[in-house]
Amino acid sequence: MKRYERLADEIAGLIRSGVLAPGERVPSVRNASRIYGVSPSTVFQAYYLLEDRGLILARARSGYFVREHAQRPLPEPEIGPRSTGATEVDVSDLVFSVLDSLKDPNTVPFGSAFPSPDLFPLARLARSMAQSIRALPPHAVITDMTTGNPDLRRQLALRYMVSGVMLPPEELVITTGAMEALNLCLQVVTEPGDLVAIEAPAFYATLQVLERLKLKAVEIPVHPRDGIDLGILADRLAQLPIKACWFMSSFQNPLGASLDAEKKRRLYALLQRHQVPMIEDDVYAELYFGIQPPRPVKSLDDEGLVMHCGSFSKCLAPGYRVGWVAGGRYAEQISRLKLMTTISPSVPIQAALADYLQHGGYDRHLRKLRHALETQQASMLASAARHFPPNTRVTRPGGGYFLWFEFPQQVDSLQLFQQALAQGISLAPGPIFSATRRFGNCARLNYGHPWDVRSEQAMAVLGRIIASF
Amino acid sequence: MKRYERLADEIAGLIRSGVLAPGERVPSVRNASRIYGVSPSTVFQAYYLLEDRGLILARARSGYFVREHAQRPLPEPEIGPRSTGATEVDVSDLVFSVLDSLKDPNTVPFGSAFPSPDLFPLARLARSMAQSIRALPPHAVITDMTTGNPDLRRQLALRYMVSGVMLPPEELVITTGAMEALNLCLQVVTEPGDLVAIEAPAFYATLQVLERLKLKAVEIPVHPRDGIDLGILADRLAQLPIKACWFMSSFQNPLGASLDAEKKRRLYALLQRHQVPMIEDDVYAELYFGIQPPRPVKSLDDEGLVMHCGSFSKCLAPGYRVGWVAGGRYAEQISRLKLMTTISPSVPIQAALADYLQHGGYDRHLRKLRHALETQQASMLASAARHFPPNTRVTRPGGGYFLWFEFPQQVDSLQLFQQALAQGISLAPGPIFSATRRFGNCARLNYGHPWDVRSEQAMAVLGRIIASF
Repeated sequence: MKRYERLADEIAGLIRSGVLAPGERVPSVRNASRIYGVSPSTVFQAYYLLEDRGLILARARSGYFVREHAQRPLPEPEIGPRSTGATEVDVSDLVFSVLDSLKDPNTVPFGSAFPSPDLFPLARLARSMAQSIRALPPHAVITDMTTGNPDLRRQLALRYMVSGVMLPPEELVITTGAMEALNLCLQVVTEPGDLVAIEAPAFYATLQVLERLKLKAVEIPVHPRDGIDLGILADRLAQLPIKACWFMSSFQNPLGASLDAEKKRRLYALLQRHQVPMIEDDVYAELYFGIQPPRPVKSLDDEGLVMHCGSFSKCLAPGYRVGWVAGGRYAEQISRLKLMTTISPSVPIQAALADYLQHGGYDRHLRKLRHALETQQASMLASAARHFPPNTRVTRPGGGYFLWFEFPQQVDSLQLFQQALAQGISLAPGPIFSATRRFGNCARLNYGHPWDVRSEQAMAVLGRIIASF
Repeated sequence: MKRYERLADEIAGLIRSGVLAPGERVPSVRNASRIYGVSPSTVFQAYYLLEDRGLILARARSGYFVREHAQRPLPEPEIGPRSTGATEVDVSDLVFSVLDSLKDPNTVPFGSAFPSPDLFPLARLARSMAQSIRALPPHAVITDMTTGNPDLRRQLALRYMVSGVMLPPEELVITTGAMEALNLCLQVVTEPGDLVAIEAPAFYATLQVLERLKLKAVEIPVHPRDGIDLGILADRLAQLPIKACWFMSSFQNPLGASLDAEKKRRLYALLQRHQVPMIEDDVYAELYFGIQPPRPVKSLDDEGLVMHCGSFSKCLAPGYRVGWVAGGRYAEQISRLKLMTTISPSVPIQAALADYLQHGGYDRHLRKLRHALETQQASMLASAARHFPPNTRVTRPGGGYFLWFEFPQQVDSLQLFQQALAQGISLAPGPIFSATRRFGNCARLNYGHPWDVRSEQAMAVLGRIIASF
């Protein structure tokens, strides 16, 4: 990372944490140069970048100011406890009708689960593909199926090491995307009828998997900023025979919430006390806006209780279908179950990703991607403040590419979804994120696509529909 | 196909069917030229090819003769009915210990489930990969996940059409290999505890899947040449609440048996009468040695009862992990289940295969592959006749790359497996193909690798171990 990028990240951190409040003047170039011990031109470059990311604003002859919407133009939603027992899940039909709506490429994709493909280094990946397939020994197309590509496992173990997790490569099972990893983990630690603790709201695929495997959901409310309510989780673990927890500890989908280091420690202590395994769905881990990557619960796991699932689908190569799980004490069972169901993800694709990780400039790409997403978040927040009713609430996640909106009570987000779709705009209505069909006045919007006039117009249309309720 | 290749195939058919008996003289070049209306040089080329494939033998000054082992040097095994009820399945540990033994590349791979990678056009596939990924529109990496690559679906539908099956491309669900397709099909039509009719012996993965899904096996005996016993199947369907049939109608693994057209019609009539869906595992379909491809049961299916599963893993691209299912009336459910478990096989790999099918010369490759396999079969049969006890029985399949050996009663194939492995030779012992651990004196040997001195020596070693029992 260049010096000016680091400086920009530091100042962005001050803005996010509220040290620099909205409307406040940021240090002059001369002062900043002195404080940070860098040249004035480095400060200028950093300020240009922050302006570009929508965080500060130049005012003629008075310097730079923190943008009003860079803090929080709309208040945060609040998600309290509701159901206390276990719930059968039946949400699949609704989810599929939403997913079907995304097929038309002309729809404004606020409902999408992926960032724009234009943000990914597809051409560079294609080169890695062409190079690696020529270098792949013929017998590898068969032997790599059982074990996964050894280079890819090594590269992944290296990345874990950098983020503070020491893993033998053998603990890693390469899967057909994180979705397969999550499915395998859950099957290894549960039987039909078992109880599983999940988040509320939860990623809709979590609900679909529970439904499919005939598992019962114990919903743990998620605070929009700090993540799951550990007090409620502790109660549920004490009262109910919960067989597994399935949580996203960083940039939770759909809220974008993250547990801080202290909460992660307390969560792991709970798992240890009850000897309940946790499936840590960490597919947004690389999409942090801060300076440091968040450390997963897995980094605390000295008992092998945590199955940590990752993927390239959200940060590098959607559609390549390569994910993995660091399976802890369950790694061998997960690997066997995988061999019995899909055998392996594509071997040449694994080789291509290994080549890219080694030579492709992955970290450079990730820095660009994070900045793009942070900029787009600022644009969507600003746009929402312009077009949505002032009593709308919205999250302000420190990573990922989703905002969660809580509209006034009378808004029915399933109707909103239908009306918006009729005008060529997709969104993900709240009820698909709940086993109990809560969040009827909420919606998840994707800011993973470069912001343009069409996005702005779509927000205005949504604002009008919301106001009409 | 060239004229001389067609002629060779016709004569090979006469040999296989016994019209031309072992030791018998094949028509002289002059006679053959007259009978078939081709030039003498075409006949010579055909005879050279047949000699190369191990079917005929030139004797100095007396012409060509059918080789002794080209017919059947060892008699066929016989597989009778045994268990009549439904059986819980528990075979996985045994299967994994066999699969583990295959990891060492120095082992003679008679136990392998795949042909040699050297028989596949990996370099040409790499070119298709490089070309197609450059041409892939960015948004396809996301949209193709739901529907599968449209070109690949079209190419597959075309190939079905040529083999007499009319399919709308929408009925095709592209999967992570046939293994995923088979798993999905079974889950769509069964609940835990249900009864499923399978073959005895059966492909071991079938048994593992039943075990995993807690389904009960109803074993239908397979005749080594003609396939499942329809009389017994009819009885079982009448007596037991069987929810699905899972059969390989052509080149069954491990026996290599195929149902002829008439038996396929009778099988389909049974399915219709009882309205029981059939999962048709047809992954060896392209590896026929005859002139005509076998037509699947799916070709008779006007009610959508048959889920026809195919794959590129055995005939073109192992390790690419692309298979499919023509799902009949279950296609939509299968597709949804796939979206909930792995979402999709790799999108760029699908594009590469679509490109190869269109431009790569797939049919030319398949002809070469079939001839190589047929030649290797002749070599292994001849070698078995030289080295194995004369009361050994063996199949003589018309396609695929497996021979099934039935050794004298006192041979314990699990011990044989261990002793052979200690000498660097793998094989697939009989009990892994049975829910009831039958076939203790049988083994499946893979002839999918080019025959060489090492193969011959390995057969001699196996012969000595067998004789020692």
